[in-house]
Formats: sequence, structure tokens, C-alpha cells
Amino acid sequence: MNTSIAGVPINPSIAGLTIDGDRLVARIEALAAIERREDGACCRLALSDSDCRGRDLVVQWMRDAGLAVRVDRIGNIIALRAGRADGAPVMTGSHIDTVASGGRYDGVLGVLAGLEVFQTLKDAGIQTQRPLAVAVFTNEEGVRFQPDMMGSLVFAGGLPLQEALDARAADGVRLGDELARGGYAGEATCGEPAPHAFVELHIEQGPILDLEGGVLGAVENLQGISWQEVTLRGTSNHAGTTPMRLRRDAGHAASRIAVFVREMAHRMGGSQVATVGSVRLTPNLINVIPGQAVVSVDLRNTEEAQLQLAEREFADFLERLADEEGVTVETRRLVRTEPVVFDEGVLQVIEAVAAGLAQPIRRMTSGAGHDAQMIARLCPTAMIFVPSIGGISHNPREFTARDHLEIGANALLHTLLRLAGT
Amino acid sequence: MNTSIAGVPINPSIAGLTIDGDRLVARIEALAAIERREDGACCRLALSDSDCRGRDLVVQWMRDAGLAVRVDRIGNIIALRAGRADGAPVMTGSHIDTVASGGRYDGVLGVLAGLEVFQTLKDAGIQTQRPLAVAVFTNEEGVRFQPDMMGSLVFAGGLPLQEALDARAADGVRLGDELARGGYAGEATCGEPAPHAFVELHIEQGPILDLEGGVLGAVENLQGISWQEVTLRGTSNHAGTTPMRLRRDAGHAASRIAVFVREMAHRMGGSQVATVGSVRLTPNLINVIPGQAVVSVDLRNTEEAQLQLAEREFADFLERLADEEGVTVETRRLVRTEPVVFDEGVLQVIEAVAAGLAQPIRRMTSGAGHDAQMIARLCPTAMIFVPSIGGISHNPREFTARDHLEIGANALLHTLLRLAGT
Repeated sequence: MNTSIAGVPINPSIAGLTIDGDRLVARIEALAAIERREDGACCRLALSDSDCRGRDLVVQWMRDAGLAVRVDRIGNIIALRAGRADGAPVMTGSHIDTVASGGRYDGVLGVLAGLEVFQTLKDAGIQTQRPLAVAVFTNEEGVRFQPDMMGSLVFAGGLPLQEALDARAADGVRLGDELARGGYAGEATCGEPAPHAFVELHIEQGPILDLEGGVLGAVENLQGISWQEVTLRGTSNHAGTTPMRLRRDAGHAASRIAVFVREMAHRMGGSQVATVGSVRLTPNLINVIPGQAVVSVDLRNTEEAQLQLAEREFADFLERLADEEGVTVETRRLVRTEPVVFDEGVLQVIEAVAAGLAQPIRRMTSGAGHDAQMIARLCPTAMIFVPSIGGISHNPREFTARDHLEIGANALLHTLLRLAGT
Repeated sequence: MNTSIAGVPINPSIAGLTIDGDRLVARIEALAAIERREDGACCRLALSDSDCRGRDLVVQWMRDAGLAVRVDRIGNIIALRAGRADGAPVMTGSHIDTVASGGRYDGVLGVLAGLEVFQTLKDAGIQTQRPLAVAVFTNEEGVRFQPDMMGSLVFAGGLPLQEALDARAADGVRLGDELARGGYAGEATCGEPAPHAFVELHIEQGPILDLEGGVLGAVENLQGISWQEVTLRGTSNHAGTTPMRLRRDAGHAASRIAVFVREMAHRMGGSQVATVGSVRLTPNLINVIPGQAVVSVDLRNTEEAQLQLAEREFADFLERLADEEGVTVETRRLVRTEPVVFDEGVLQVIEAVAAGLAQPIRRMTSGAGHDAQMIARLCPTAMIFVPSIGGISHNPREFTARDHLEIGANALLHTLLRLAGT
């Protein structure tokens, strides 16, 4: 998105407005209490019974706040608050579905902080110039139905509605049928109302803010992601009787991949990261040279040109590797997304708001995917991060301090006010 | 064993004596037919019903050849053929137990070629100066009961009899009880008769003879074996959000182990081999930095000093690795055996026999363990190898050509004749 956006100077009478932290935290806990496991993990897989109970609760809160609620055909829930003028709303939102063993804040913070902003404005009797909207996007996690970020992707026109409705879970259940079953097969057209601007508040899910002592992050971009599965085939043989020079050791070749991508990431620097997270050797026995290795390679960069360079260097390395190790190499592309660059105008508004709140803020990159990256196709967009203790997420130990939840929600409040005008 | 041994010059009248290849092959096939699986694999785990049926068959053949059969207290079967003089016998033998999915020749060739030698001498009316003996050692493979090479180890005094009898299978069955059940809890004292010399014929189970076009190997030593399990613990984290500089990647550290031991083996040269055969990462997911890795390291060398050097270099490397990668390292020793050097005198007899048979022969190392390495504690010992096609063993595709079986058995015949005197 090249269009930039500027915030409207704030009305001094509302500069000190703050959200109600107790109410925000109580709602986060209420949502977490739905199907919470013994270890504290939340399990609200998209459009499961528990996800739908969560949706029902959020819709009730939206109605309690006097908001008009629309559900579109992919099940996105959008609550609207009228502005003094008609026109495209300034939108916020995120998701409330979780992974199978998720935390309390991932996605939920963005939805409930958005709702809290609307409630705060209602309580203070403030009407913005532009309309406001808060969205709950369907199936962000992509655990039960693929692809992930599905609701926002359909909303942005990046995936045909019918294809999304026809997505099937591992047990054969169709997403469209689950929407109907849960009462979320809405009638509203996907992509409407087209937003004027979009801001998503989210926990970082990484260690940077926690490690470096910051509270707010202005997310300026998302990594492009390149996932490959590499299958190496050599010759399985006796570890004692096979001389080194006669070996075609798929396990050794796999190890060289992990060492190479680490070295490449360090050499490239910048935002390049590279991970071999999964290695499966066959037969995987102490005294047998591995005949086959299946290795996952995860490359990420915020610059598309750099990511392509990493992919080319890696492909060249695999050719040399096959030659040097006497193995065959087969690659399968699993995921490829381009980096997303957020809107400079929205970022500057967020930074100005942080200054107004007397909170230091740093520009940063998101290593995870978010609904905002899909909505960025439609309008000027950016994200606000708050710290995740230890960078832990998708885990019952996911935690963000109460103060940080409040600061994040207040930053969202004033960013939406500046973008919508008061 | 430092005592060397020299062969007695051969009697010209028996220089042309040969075994009966048809009979040898027919017996190999008859033994293989006991509990042969659909894919051709043999399954005669030590002291199972099928192993005992194999033993019964071999004992019957021994008796048919007019041999005196003794069974000792660990179940070793030893058939004796009187010499013109009393005294310590020249012994041959091997084992007939198999792995769960074994081939036809591993162990079996050594036993049945020995028996074939005795049958040939009987048919030709030849009596040697010294007595001869052929042994079937109990539980060489060590699959059902540990340790492997158990019968020969007890015979050589390297393991107390009672400890061996008390060995238990995974299902709790006691070895001593299985011996009794199968009728092989013998009365004879282990270690008797003490052999004058020992020669074992075996398939190579490695690729060297097949690749280099040879038929006979004079095995001059066995590798010492050092097995370790290395557990690396780092920090499991998100592959997208964790900067390279903050990673404690146990999977990357594991890969460096595989690359290091390969490089070390090449640098050390000689007989050093090194293998990382098994790697288990946790959680082993594409987008998660591995928090733990468990890696097997198999180091082998025919020189004890060199093997110790390799172990020291590896230990030093692990210290550097822990420091550089920010992981903790824990090692567990699984197996450690010293190299075995066979007897130069016996080797020269084998080489002289090969020359008499007009067969090229090469000195070589055994990468696998064999009963002969235990018997080498008692008397001058060496082994004769014949080729394994493709080096494949412990596999139904294990194969040695008919000609090579015959040449091996004839080499054994004339080696025993020279060692026992005619």
C-alpha cells in the first residue's frame, strides 16, 4: 500500500482519556475460562464449540456496548460505531481462535482492547468524525482449517469465498458447515465495509520487547516466509564396515544443511533468520549410516529481494551438497509468503500517540503472521505490539503484564481517535 | 595374544582336496528354511523355538558325520573329531542365531563350512595330527539377550556363567530357563576343550571385497567400538521471532556434531570411522527452534591409542560446542570395546593357503563383532572373510555367491589341515 495517511491532531479535552483496565482484564479472563485445560491452556480451535461460545460472548459484549454487529459470509464478526460523518470506518480487530494448547492473549487482546476502546468512548460520550469498526476474523490460527489468516484473507479478496467455505478439517468436516452449525454463516458481503485505515494491537510473541525493556512496538513490517522440505537419499549401510570414502550418508548431508543456513543467515545479517526445526533420519539407529533424511528449512526476511537471494543461495548449496555427498536431493515448497510493509503514516500516528502517553516505542518486525498483513492489501495499516514475557506464545505460559495490556489498549484508543478524528 | 603359530607343511597327497559345494549350499538352505519369512528373511533369535530347531538340525548333521557332540553350560555346541595325537584341538565355528530379519549366511557359513570340512575329511579317510573341533556359539547377535557374543565370551572367561544364565529378554524370560526348555542346558564345562588355535570363516558384512573384486580376506583385526549418546539442551523458541543472536538451538548444535566427527575421521585417516546414525529433536517442528537434541555417536578404530585420541578430541569439541552454542551437553557411554589384533602366524597360514588355492587375498579389518574376537583371548586366532554383495547384511538381501562360499570353505579346510597337521 503506497497511500500514506496522517492522523488528525488530537482534541486537548480527550488527551487524558484512558480505558478501563479492570474491565479489559476481566473480559480476557472470561474468554480464557471457556474450555481452559488443567495446565491453563486455552483450546478454541476455529469454529469448534468452544470457539463459538467465545464468539457468542464477544457478540454479547458488542451488543451491550450498543454496537451494530454484522457477520459476513466467512464468519467474520464486525461491530460498527457510527461517526459524525458517513464513510469508510477506521478499523481495528484481530481473532479469538487459538491453537490446541494456546495462551490467553494471542488475538484476544486485539479484539477485546478494540471493544474496550468503543466502550470507553461510549462511557465518555465521545463520537468520532469517521465511523469505527472492530473485527473478529475467522480462523486466524489455521490449525483446524487451512490456510491460516483465512477470514482476513477472504475479507481482503485474497482467497475466493467458496474455496474457504469448502476447506475441510482432518476429520472431513467442512468449514462452511461448521459456520452454519455454530450460527456464524452470516449474510454480509465479505470486504465490506471497506476500511479507511486498520490498526491491530497484538502481543509480540517474540522476545525483543521483553529483553530490551520496551513496552510498545510499532510494527513496520512482517517477514516473508519460505518453508521447504528437503528429502536427501543416500545409502544406508553398516557404521563399522563402511569406509568413510564409500559413504553416502544422508544424515551427514542433513547436518550440513543446518550448518549452512545458520552460516548464511549470519553472513546476510539484517532481518534474515533461518531454522532447521525438524530432522527425520531413516533408519535412525546408532550403528547404521542414515539412508534417508527429511529436513525442514524455514527462511524469513522482511525484504523480498533478500529472501529470494537466500533461497537462491540455498538452492545452489543443495546442488553442491548432492555432488559432494553423493546423495539425491528433492525439495518441496510448503509455504511462501512475501514480506509485508506497513504504512508509514499510520506508524507515525502510533509513534505520536506513544509520545503523548510518555511511553518509549520502537520500530520492529513481526516474525509471526497476523490478520493485519491481509488487511494491508485494502488500506493503510500498521500494528502495535506489547511484550510477551520470555517471548513465549502458543503455550499456556504465554503472559503479558497487566500494565502492558493497559498501555497497549490506551495506545490503540488514541491511535483510533487520531485516525478517525474527534 | 602374543603367542604366534605356524602351519605344518601340507601333505602333497591332500593338496587337491575340496569340500562338496552342493552339500554345503543345501545345508545353508535347509537351515534358512526354518521360520523363513515372506520376504526371505530368517528369524532365529537366540534360544527361540526356531533357533533350537536349527540347533537340532546341526547336531543331527554333526552326529551323522560321526562327531562327538558336547554342549556346555552356556549352550555352546562343540563337535570334536579325534586326531592321531591327543591335545588341544584346532577349532573353528561361529553362530547360527540371527537378528529378527536376518540373512542366510551371517554365522551360518562359519558353522556349516566347519562341519563340511569334517565331513570332507571323513569321506576322504583323513585323520589330522591334532584333534579338530567345530563350535556353535550361543547368542552371538545379542538381540534377545545382552550382551552379544555371549557364548564365546563365557567360553573365553570374559563373563561369569551365572550372569549370562540370568540374562533376561525384554519379556522377562531368563536365558538359563530358555536353554533348559530347548534342551541346550548342557553339562560340559565352559572353556573346554581349550583350543590350540581358532579360525572363523564369515561373510564380510561390508562392501570392500565386493567393491574391490577380491574373494578372500585375511582379517587381521577388529575395530574397537565407542558408542556415546549426547543430549543437548538449548531453548525451544519461535523460528520467526527469535533473532539469530539470541538462539540456543540444540538442533544446530547436533548438526555440528555430525559435521565435526566426519571431519575428524577424515583428518585422522587410517581405520578411523565415525557415524551419527540417530538424531532426535524436540519438538521437531518446522517453525520451532529445537530445544533438545539426542544424538548417537559411533567411533571405531583398530588402534586403541587412536580411538582414545578420537574420544578426547570429541570431548574437547563438545566443550567448545556448549560454549559457542549456549547449550548444555550431557554424554552417556553406551558401549566401549577395545580393538582386537589377530595372530600373525595364523594369518600367514591363511595367506599361504590362499596362494595354494591360487586365490588373491587381502588383509582387512572387521567392522563388525565376531565370536573369534572372544576366542582370541584363549589362543592364536584369525578370521577368513568372503564377499557380501553390496556389503548388505542383517537383511534378507544378504548374499554371497556360490563360488565364494566354496572358495571360503576350501580355504578353511586347508587352513585347518595346516594348523592341525596331516
